[in-house]
Amino acid sequence: MAKVNVSIPQGTRDFGPDVVRKRNFIFNTIRSVFELYGYDPLETPAMENLETLMGKYGEEGDKLIFKILNNGLDNSEKEKQARDDFEKILQGKNTAGITERALKYDLTIPFARYVAMNHKQLTFPFKRYQIQPVWRADKPQRSRYREFYQCDADVVGSNSLLNEVELAGIYATVFEKLKINVEIKINSRKILTALAEISGGADKMMDITIAIDKLDKIGLEKVKEVLSQKGLDNKQITVIERYLGITGNNNEKIAQVKSLLGNTETGKKGIEEVEYLISSSLTADHSPLTIDFTLARGLNYYTGIIFEVIAKNVQLGSIGGGGRYDDLTGLFGVPNIPGVGISFGVDRIYDVMEELKLFPVEVHTGTQALFFNLGKAESKAAFSLMQQLRNKNVRCELYPETVKFDKQFKYAEKKNIPYVIIIGSKELEEKTCVIKDIRNGEQQTIPAGGLETFSFL
Amino acid sequence: MAKVNVSIPQGTRDFGPDVVRKRNFIFNTIRSVFELYGYDPLETPAMENLETLMGKYGEEGDKLIFKILNNGLDNSEKEKQARDDFEKILQGKNTAGITERALKYDLTIPFARYVAMNHKQLTFPFKRYQIQPVWRADKPQRSRYREFYQCDADVVGSNSLLNEVELAGIYATVFEKLKINVEIKINSRKILTALAEISGGADKMMDITIAIDKLDKIGLEKVKEVLSQKGLDNKQITVIERYLGITGNNNEKIAQVKSLLGNTETGKKGIEEVEYLISSSLTADHSPLTIDFTLARGLNYYTGIIFEVIAKNVQLGSIGGGGRYDDLTGLFGVPNIPGVGISFGVDRIYDVMEELKLFPVEVHTGTQALFFNLGKAESKAAFSLMQQLRNKNVRCELYPETVKFDKQFKYAEKKNIPYVIIIGSKELEEKTCVIKDIRNGEQQTIPAGGLETFSFL
Repeated sequence: MAKVNVSIPQGTRDFGPDVVRKRNFIFNTIRSVFELYGYDPLETPAMENLETLMGKYGEEGDKLIFKILNNGLDNSEKEKQARDDFEKILQGKNTAGITERALKYDLTIPFARYVAMNHKQLTFPFKRYQIQPVWRADKPQRSRYREFYQCDADVVGSNSLLNEVELAGIYATVFEKLKINVEIKINSRKILTALAEISGGADKMMDITIAIDKLDKIGLEKVKEVLSQKGLDNKQITVIERYLGITGNNNEKIAQVKSLLGNTETGKKGIEEVEYLISSSLTADHSPLTIDFTLARGLNYYTGIIFEVIAKNVQLGSIGGGGRYDDLTGLFGVPNIPGVGISFGVDRIYDVMEELKLFPVEVHTGTQALFFNLGKAESKAAFSLMQQLRNKNVRCELYPETVKFDKQFKYAEKKNIPYVIIIGSKELEEKTCVIKDIRNGEQQTIPAGGLETFSFL
Repeated sequence: MAKVNVSIPQGTRDFGPDVVRKRNFIFNTIRSVFELYGYDPLETPAMENLETLMGKYGEEGDKLIFKILNNGLDNSEKEKQARDDFEKILQGKNTAGITERALKYDLTIPFARYVAMNHKQLTFPFKRYQIQPVWRADKPQRSRYREFYQCDADVVGSNSLLNEVELAGIYATVFEKLKINVEIKINSRKILTALAEISGGADKMMDITIAIDKLDKIGLEKVKEVLSQKGLDNKQITVIERYLGITGNNNEKIAQVKSLLGNTETGKKGIEEVEYLISSSLTADHSPLTIDFTLARGLNYYTGIIFEVIAKNVQLGSIGGGGRYDDLTGLFGVPNIPGVGISFGVDRIYDVMEELKLFPVEVHTGTQALFFNLGKAESKAAFSLMQQLRNKNVRCELYPETVKFDKQFKYAEKKNIPYVIIIGSKELEEKTCVIKDIRNGEQQTIPAGGLETFSFL
C-alpha cells in the first residue's frame, strides 16, 4: 500500500487523552453547576435543515455555514443530476439542488428551533443547558477553530430578573470552582437605549451600541470619530462622552448614570435592572459583579441585562457573555417567548487555565496503578488483585506483555501513572506485593491483601 | 415574520432532558469502566478529509458518507466557479471541486488516521476509548439513524491475549453495572480459517464466513444453499455442517472442535485463543462468556478472537461486538500495528434498558427541590437557603415568578422534581420552612437551618 499523506482538515483538532481530561474537567464543572441551578440538558443534532440556519446570522454568517452535499451526490456519481440541478440553480429556479442540510453554526438557533417545534409540550419557564460542538467555515487562526464547543444556558418563558440573578450566580460559582479570578461585567441594553434617546439619536441606537462596543479596542477618540461618521453631531457626542466617562465603584456609577439618564422612562428601567442585580443577596455573596456602562455586546439582539466575563491576571479577552432577549422563536413562527442566557468560552477558559496552571494535578492522571507483567502465574495473581481494586474504583491495568522491567517502567512514566505494583515469584510466594510511587521513587512491600485499602493518590 | 415549517433532518434526533440523562447514564457507566481498565479518552473531529474516508468502507459504505460542500460554495454564490469545477469533475480532471471534507462514518478509521499521524509520539500499547457521534446517509428506519453515537475501546501495538481477557472483563463489568443480563459470545477467526482449510475451501474463507454469519437469520439449509452457490461441493459442505452442529457447554464444544480442527496449525492456534480466554481467572469470575463457533462477524477484517454481546430476555439482536485485527494503520502508510477492540451499541442498549425498565429512578430527577416563590422577602430567604443546599450538591431552584401555588406546583410535577419547599410569611417569621415530598404528598415543617442536612432522595 502506498504511503498516504495523512492530515486533518484545517481548523479542526484531535484531542488526545490529557487534553480530553482537561477539557472534561471544565465541561463537568460547568455542567454540574448548571444542574445545581436547575438547568436541564438538551442535545440537538449536528445537522439542521439548511432553511433553519440560513438568514439567521447576517450575510457574513451565512457564508460561514458548512453545507452538506445531498445524499448520493458525490464526485463520481450522479453528475448528470448534479449538472441539471446546477443549471436550475444558475437559472434561479431551485436552491435545494445540491444541499439541503448544514452543520449547526451555534447553539441558539437550534435551541430556538427546538422550542418552536416543541413549545406545546414543554414546561415553561424552560431552563436548558447545551454543551455541543458547532462548525464555522471561518479562516482558521490562533484560538479560532472551524469546529469548537459552545456551552450555553438559557431560560425562556420568564421575564423575571431572578433569572439574571441566578445566571450571575452560575458564572460566579463556575469560576470559583475553576479557581479563575474573574470580573463579571454587567450593563443593561435599556440604559444604552436611553443614552441614544437622550443624545437625540434614538434611531441610531444600533450605531451607538456598535461604536461603544469598540471602545476597548479603538479608544475614545476613534469611537467619537465613528459616531461622527454615523451622523451624530458634537452635542450628541458630548453626551455619549460624558456617559462613557462614568467611573467609580458600583454605587458611584449608579449615582452618575441616574443623574444622566434617570429622568427617562427607559433609563429608569435599565437602572432598576442593574441595581436589582447588584443588590441581590446571592450575588453580593459572590461579589465579582461590576457595572460597566461601556459594555454593549455588539450586534446581538439583547434588550435588557447584558453580561461579559473577563479573566483577571491574563490578557485573553472575554471568556463568557450573554444577556436578555425579547423573542427567541419568532423567526420560527412562535412569538412571545422571551428569555435570558449566558455562554462560556470553553477554548479561552482552557487557555486561561493552562496559562495560570489552574488544572488540578489529578486531572493528568488516567490509570492510577500499573501492575508489572512478570510471567503467567504472577499475572494471574495481578488479575485478581486488579478486580478488587476496580471494585474500589481504582483505575489500574496490567502491562500486557512479559517484557523487560525497563520497558514497563517507561510505559508507566509516559502515561503519567503514579504507582507501579510489582509481583514477582518471591512476592507471589509470600503473598505480598511491592508498590512504588514513581513520582518520588519511594517503595514499600505490603501484604497483597492490604492493597485494597491503599490510598492511590 | 411568516410562519416557518420547522423540522429536523430525517434520521436525526433531538434529545430532551430525560433522554439525555438516560443516555448519559449509559455513557458514564461505560466511560468509567473503560477508565477502570486503563483506557484513555480520545476525541477526533466530526470532519475528516474526504480522502481519509473514501475507499475504506467498500463501495456501499462510500456512498453513505456525508460530504461537506467546500467553503464559500453555496446556492447563491460562486456559481460560476462551481460550474467550472463541475465541468472538470464531469471530464474526470478533478475530483475535489466541490467537496474535500466529510463527516466521519465510524470511529475506527479516524482512530487509525490518528495513530498513523502520531505513531512516533504515542506510547504503545496504546489503549484508547472514544465515544462520539458518526454520520451515515443510510435510509432512516426504526433504530437506524443518520447521526448516532459509537462507543469503542481499542488497544493497539500489542499481540497479547491478556488484552482480549481485559476487554471481555469490560463487557462483563459494564453490563453488570447496567444490570443487563448478557451472553458474551466468543470465537476465533483462526478457527473459521481452519474450517475453510480443512473443508478444502481455503480460498473461500470469506464466502464461508459470510455464509455462516447469516446462520441465525436464514437457517442451516439456506446457508448450505449459499455455500453450494459459492462453489463448495457436498463433501465440503458436510464438514461445515458438522462444525455448525457443535453443541454443549464450553468444554464440550472445545472437545468437539478439537476433534474436527485440532490437527491443523491454524485450528490449534484458534482453539488455544478461545481456551485461554475461557479459562482466564478474570472472566471465570464474571462467567457470561460463551463459545459460539457459528459466530463470524461478517465482513470485518478480524484475524483472531471475535466477540458479540447479546442481551438475554429481549429480542434486540447484538448490543456489542469486536475482535482482533492484524493491521490498523497500513492503509495510512504505517504497517505492523495490530490491535483488538470492542464496541457498545448505545442506541440498542438504551432500547433494552427502556424495555426492561432498568434505568435507576434517580436518572429521571434533574432538580431535586423547588422553592416556591411567595414574594420578595420570601424569595430572598429562599436564595440564601439555596446557596447552602447547592454547596451540599443539592440541585435546586426558585420558581422565578410570584404566581399562584397551583402553577408552581404543576411546574414541579411536570419537571419531575421530588421536593417542593415553601417559605411563606409565617415560615419567614418563624425561621422555618415547609418541605413536601410530592411523590407521596407527605409534608413537614422544619427549622430553616435544618434544610442543609435534609436528605433529598
